[in-house]
Amino acid sequence: MATRQKIAIIGVGLLGGSLALALKKKKGLELVGWNHRASSRKKASHLLQVVSTLEKAIQNADVIIICSHSSTVLPLLKQIGGLVKGQTLIMDVSSIKGQIVRAAQLIKGLENHFVPCHPMAGKEKSGSSFADALLYQNHTVFITPLSKNPKALVRKAVRFWKSVGALPVLFNAKTHDQYVALTSHLPHLLASAYVQLYGLQTKRSQSISVAAGSGFKDFTRIAASNPAMWSDILEMNAEEVIVFLNQYRRHLTALEKQLRKGSKTYWFSFFEKGKTIRETIK
Amino acid sequence: MATRQKIAIIGVGLLGGSLALALKKKKGLELVGWNHRASSRKKASHLLQVVSTLEKAIQNADVIIICSHSSTVLPLLKQIGGLVKGQTLIMDVSSIKGQIVRAAQLIKGLENHFVPCHPMAGKEKSGSSFADALLYQNHTVFITPLSKNPKALVRKAVRFWKSVGALPVLFNAKTHDQYVALTSHLPHLLASAYVQLYGLQTKRSQSISVAAGSGFKDFTRIAASNPAMWSDILEMNAEEVIVFLNQYRRHLTALEKQLRKGSKTYWFSFFEKGKTIRETIK
Repeated sequence: MATRQKIAIIGVGLLGGSLALALKKKKGLELVGWNHRASSRKKASHLLQVVSTLEKAIQNADVIIICSHSSTVLPLLKQIGGLVKGQTLIMDVSSIKGQIVRAAQLIKGLENHFVPCHPMAGKEKSGSSFADALLYQNHTVFITPLSKNPKALVRKAVRFWKSVGALPVLFNAKTHDQYVALTSHLPHLLASAYVQLYGLQTKRSQSISVAAGSGFKDFTRIAASNPAMWSDILEMNAEEVIVFLNQYRRHLTALEKQLRKGSKTYWFSFFEKGKTIRETIK
Repeated sequence: MATRQKIAIIGVGLLGGSLALALKKKKGLELVGWNHRASSRKKASHLLQVVSTLEKAIQNADVIIICSHSSTVLPLLKQIGGLVKGQTLIMDVSSIKGQIVRAAQLIKGLENHFVPCHPMAGKEKSGSSFADALLYQNHTVFITPLSKNPKALVRKAVRFWKSVGALPVLFNAKTHDQYVALTSHLPHLLASAYVQLYGLQTKRSQSISVAAGSGFKDFTRIAASNPAMWSDILEMNAEEVIVFLNQYRRHLTALEKQLRKGSKTYWFSFFEKGKTIRETIK
C-alpha cells in the first residue's frame, strides 16, 4: 500500500521547476514531472524524476499541477479530466482565470478535481534552469474556484500553496482578471512598447545606451519576459487590458497637452500624486 | 599658504551628500557645504562642514559643484559667476543641459569657470540622509562643455568625476537632452501616470494591492522620485519629451487596435522584439 503522496508537475519550466525544488524538501512525497518537448524533459530531469508520457506522469497522482502556458491549460484539462479518479486535485498556475473557469465548468466532473490557481510569482527569466525553491515564499496565490468545487477540495489547494510558503487568497475569477490586467498585463505591454521605442532610437544613435541608467533598467526589466507566455496572456485577457490601456492612453494625451503648456505647478502636483501612491506599496 | 584644495558643494541633498561622502575619503581636500534652507543645512552638517552663507562657501574654492535642482542652476551661476577668480571650476549636476548651456554662454567670463555636467546617478529617495559614497561608482557622467570652455578646464572636470569612480563622457548638450528625454524623463512620466491609474482603481477596490507583484514594483519604482526635481526637469525638457511621448502614444493606439483583433502571432512577435532589445542592456 502506497503511503507516499504523488505530485505530478505538468510543464516543468520556471514555475514548475521552482515548485519541484520547494516540494523536494518535504518528506513523504513522490514527485514526477513531464514536459511536452523532449529537450525540456531533459532539462527538467536535473530537478526531479521525469517520465516520458503525460499518462505516466498523472497515473495515481494525488495532486496534478499544470504549469505550462495559459493556452495549454484547457487542452490539458480535457485530456487529463477523464483519466483522474478519487480525490485527485488538479491545479493550474495561469495568469488568466476567467476563460479557464468558464470553460472548465462545462467539462463534466471536472469540478471534483480542478481548482484554478494563479501564483503571483515569476521572473523575467524562463525555463527550469532558473528554478528557485523560494520563488513562492510570501507571494500571493489567487485561487478562483469553480462554482461547484467541493469546499474540501479548495481547502486542499489552500494547504498545498501554504506548504510551499505562499499566501493563498480566494478570489472571483473576473475580479482577478481585471486586477492583473491593471497590475501586471498592462505594465508588460507598456514596458515592451517602451523598449521598442528605445530600440528604434538605438538604430539611429547607438551611443544612447550610455544614457540607460538604473531607473531605465528597473522600468524595463519585465520587457525581457517570455514572449510565448505573454502572447498567451495578452490574447486571453485582451478585453480587460483594453479598458485600462484606453484610460492610460487618454491620460497620456492630456499629459502631452500639459507639456506644451509648460506649468511647473502642474508637474509638481502630478509627480507628487504618483509618489504618494507609489509609497503605499512596499 | 594653503595647499589644501577647497571644494564647495552647493545644495547638499542626495547627489551633493553622496559627493561629500565620496570626497571625504581623499586626502588634501577641504570640503564645505551650503544649503538654502537652514533645516537642510542642519541635515547636511552630519556629512560635512556646513557654512551659513553661499559667499562663505564659495570663497577661495577651487571647485564649486551646484547640486541643487535644475531650475536653481542658472540663478546660482549668475550669483556665483561674478565672485569667482583664477582657476575655479564650477560644475552642476542637472539632468537638463541645453537650456543651461545656452544661457551660461551669455554670461560673460563664465566659460572660464563653468563646465556643465550631468551624472546619471540617483535614487527614488531624496535628501542628504540617503547619501551614499558609492552613488557615482561606474555611473556615466555627461559633460556638455560650453563652446568656449578652455580644454584644460574640461579636463579638470573629467578628472574630478573619475576621482569619485564615475565614467565621464563628453557630449553635445542637445543630443544629451534628447537621449535622457527618452531614457529617463519619459519613463518617469509614464511610471507616474501608470501609478495614478492604479491609484484610481484602489479607491474602488482596495484589495487590488494584493495583485501588485515584483514586476509592478520594478516598473513603478521611479514614480516615487522627488516631485520638485522632476517638475523642473519635465518643464525644462518638455520639447524633447513631447517628441517621444507622442511616438509612444501613437504606438499604444496601434496596440489597442491589435488587442481588439486578437492575434497571438502579433503579440508573440511584439514581446519577442521587446525581449531582444531589453537583453542588449545589462
